[in-house]
Amino acid sequence: MSDYTNIHVFEEFTENVSMDIGVEKQLYSAESEFQKIEVFQSHEFGRFLMLDGDIIFSEADEFVYNEMVTHVPMSVHPNVKKVLIIGGGDGGVARELTAYPEIEQIEVVEPDEQMVEVCREFFPDAVKGFDDKRVHITHQDGLRFLRGRRAEYDLIINDSTDPFGHTEGLFTKEFYGSCYKALKDDGIMVYQHGSPFFDEDEEAFRAMHRKVYTSFPISRVYQAHIPTCPSGYWMFGFASKKYHPITDFKPENWKKRNIKTWYYTSNLHVGSFMLPKYVEDILEEEENKGEK
Amino acid sequence: MSDYTNIHVFEEFTENVSMDIGVEKQLYSAESEFQKIEVFQSHEFGRFLMLDGDIIFSEADEFVYNEMVTHVPMSVHPNVKKVLIIGGGDGGVARELTAYPEIEQIEVVEPDEQMVEVCREFFPDAVKGFDDKRVHITHQDGLRFLRGRRAEYDLIINDSTDPFGHTEGLFTKEFYGSCYKALKDDGIMVYQHGSPFFDEDEEAFRAMHRKVYTSFPISRVYQAHIPTCPSGYWMFGFASKKYHPITDFKPENWKKRNIKTWYYTSNLHVGSFMLPKYVEDILEEEENKGEK
Repeated sequence: MSDYTNIHVFEEFTENVSMDIGVEKQLYSAESEFQKIEVFQSHEFGRFLMLDGDIIFSEADEFVYNEMVTHVPMSVHPNVKKVLIIGGGDGGVARELTAYPEIEQIEVVEPDEQMVEVCREFFPDAVKGFDDKRVHITHQDGLRFLRGRRAEYDLIINDSTDPFGHTEGLFTKEFYGSCYKALKDDGIMVYQHGSPFFDEDEEAFRAMHRKVYTSFPISRVYQAHIPTCPSGYWMFGFASKKYHPITDFKPENWKKRNIKTWYYTSNLHVGSFMLPKYVEDILEEEENKGEK
Repeated sequence: MSDYTNIHVFEEFTENVSMDIGVEKQLYSAESEFQKIEVFQSHEFGRFLMLDGDIIFSEADEFVYNEMVTHVPMSVHPNVKKVLIIGGGDGGVARELTAYPEIEQIEVVEPDEQMVEVCREFFPDAVKGFDDKRVHITHQDGLRFLRGRRAEYDLIINDSTDPFGHTEGLFTKEFYGSCYKALKDDGIMVYQHGSPFFDEDEEAFRAMHRKVYTSFPISRVYQAHIPTCPSGYWMFGFASKKYHPITDFKPENWKKRNIKTWYYTSNLHVGSFMLPKYVEDILEEEENKGEK
């Protein structure tokens, strides 16, 4: 029997499959200019943030996501000075990046200022990334921010939510093209690649690989286990003009940094690119369709 | 809105967290001598089997589990002749094993005859493994079956359900000791290792590693993504008297066999042993407690 029998949050995985979370209480609920913002307190996931009814992150598993989008590219690129985070209003990615002293500038482009304020109040461990003086937050649309920028960034991390609603433009071929242009000649883009297990997610997963594979010379997909994501399985994309995530990976250099992690290790870095056969098959099918 | 709004199956992950599956219909429900057996028809998972209210496998994800307990040890051990499956009443593991011509004998020890009959009726794709003439099914308790057996098997796969109820004895130090004795000098045991993410699963996960680590010279843990398991994340144990799952792994030999898989690849084999830092830490803590 649940400790909390009164309030249940349903995180929809598909039309028929949800994760049902008994929660202690709702801590916050409001409509911002962009979306509905809610914060809940739960036993298993600690506090978690919902946007328009979807769990965006929880205290219990945000480390998986934030470490995997940060340390994978940072351990491959030899000299990152300037980083752009699209979305990232909770500060978790910025927090991970501040562990690297060579980074000079971290730009966070998050349209929803109210979301950032809510995170400041309820998720102090994530937003502490924003205290670093190298971080600068702009409240603007990511696609608009990128237009006209040329060869400026070493690393772009697309930390925006699902490809629906106001963030839809951040999952288009135009967006990936803008990222390509905004990156330096040896730049890397990391992005959310969705979940391939359920049939209704598969087409979005395929389309994303098709778009990025044809936009960048190097395009590889990697995986992590994130319990609050559909089926507990989440993928990321690594796209680059020059560096390969495995052959250009220098585990010894990363280990010397002694960065404290809970999910990422230099060993897991390699393993995260070793994918199930059914996922490999999907990616290969899309690669065979695309023209480079 | 769910296609099926009337029947919902709740797969309990923890006291407060469940997976809520809207199902089309219940196909079977009865109490056997050992447990409550139910079969449901769903859109996302196809047919699935529940025992005492827990999902044991579904048509949509059984391939992950069955491939990972079979192909990992089979691609390491150079010459498996005799295999023992403890549990395995659905036939899925036997089916995977029949792809290897060098195996002479596959013994399935499943106490619940009624469960096997239900699988024969509702899961023809899994139970087709039982049609192979090398397979022999015994309806007996696994622990009792093992007592007194010495140096008989090349491979033991513990395919029994959770360490509660009538299968509790299959997760004790006595059981692992019996497996050790029943294995030949170069034998391998593969077993379910549970899920490490939720706090309430962690102690069982720790205890299992402690028991096996002190019972076998080689003991490694590997992972897979299984949506119907708690948090979508499941672990397996590889215990052996002689072979190491990575250093004795011969990917080229396995590839030459051309076995059709949907999850396992020789690349993923290696990656499945590359674990998140928090899992590595748990395992190391238990290894430091145990005396070899």
